[in-house]
Amino acid sequence: MAKVPDTSCSIARSVGLLGERWTFLILRDAFDGLSRFDDFRRSLGIAADVLSARLATLVEYGVLDKVDYQEPGARRRHAYVLTDAGRELFVIVAALQQWGDRHLPRSEGPSMLRRAKDGDDVHVGFVDSRGREVAPEDFVMVRTDAYPPERRRLLAERGSLAG
Amino acid sequence: MAKVPDTSCSIARSVGLLGERWTFLILRDAFDGLSRFDDFRRSLGIAADVLSARLATLVEYGVLDKVDYQEPGARRRHAYVLTDAGRELFVIVAALQQWGDRHLPRSEGPSMLRRAKDGDDVHVGFVDSRGREVAPEDFVMVRTDAYPPERRRLLAERGSLAG
Repeated sequence: MAKVPDTSCSIARSVGLLGERWTFLILRDAFDGLSRFDDFRRSLGIAADVLSARLATLVEYGVLDKVDYQEPGARRRHAYVLTDAGRELFVIVAALQQWGDRHLPRSEGPSMLRRAKDGDDVHVGFVDSRGREVAPEDFVMVRTDAYPPERRRLLAERGSLAG
Repeated sequence: MAKVPDTSCSIARSVGLLGERWTFLILRDAFDGLSRFDDFRRSLGIAADVLSARLATLVEYGVLDKVDYQEPGARRRHAYVLTDAGRELFVIVAALQQWGDRHLPRSEGPSMLRRAKDGDDVHVGFVDSRGREVAPEDFVMVRTDAYPPERRRLLAERGSLAG
């Protein structure tokens, strides 16, 4: 079944692929260093068929590569490693983490910190082509010709058509 | 029903709140300038009870404020506007958009572009405390005392305990 909807909105396409239950937590585990089917199961406590289906979707869309591994005396098993496209999802997972640490905090504090080599805090933000941070109020979203006309009309009715 | 799981992982907490079907698309619409219940329905084509439930959750957790509005001759109706905490979700929505534009592209190209005031492209990335972009390979995730011990053991077994 196609997960990615037939729409000009890239947010909706990404959400179609990534927004199923468990998928972001599978990705979290992959970024945390897990790759084996049995390790994802142990970490997440989900049914094997659900995990299989989620992993198959991520392989189909080029987020994970399926590889075999074999331990001495054991049968061949499957592992799943992030592709280059998959590794680019790190910024989304880190942004979810950053927001949760700030707005859904716990008394014990964050379980992971982002630290540059010199110990500096690293956060997720907006950046221009020269690598300088841009505040959200200092840029705009520009709607292109690919933006749906009926949606443009609705926003014009509401007076919120900025771009 | 509590949406946010009782876990030290802030990614899992954010996903518990935001990862339900439709929620990211409601947020997309809010960032695009929509606020009225009927406009979200028209945009998303979802059942009123599902939309009500999603909006109520986002209000409960401080992402949206519920406000009344009234047009001449009509009854009072509800609108939903992003709080400060809600506006901080923009970087997550923009990161979903960026990844979809790059890895699930369409022939007509992106429907929206991020543009600084001087016309420069703006992207989502990692930034240090001095506002300079940091490449993913130039920082590390450091696990704190709040990181679950049983998960630390699993990663140690796999040799992937870096932090």
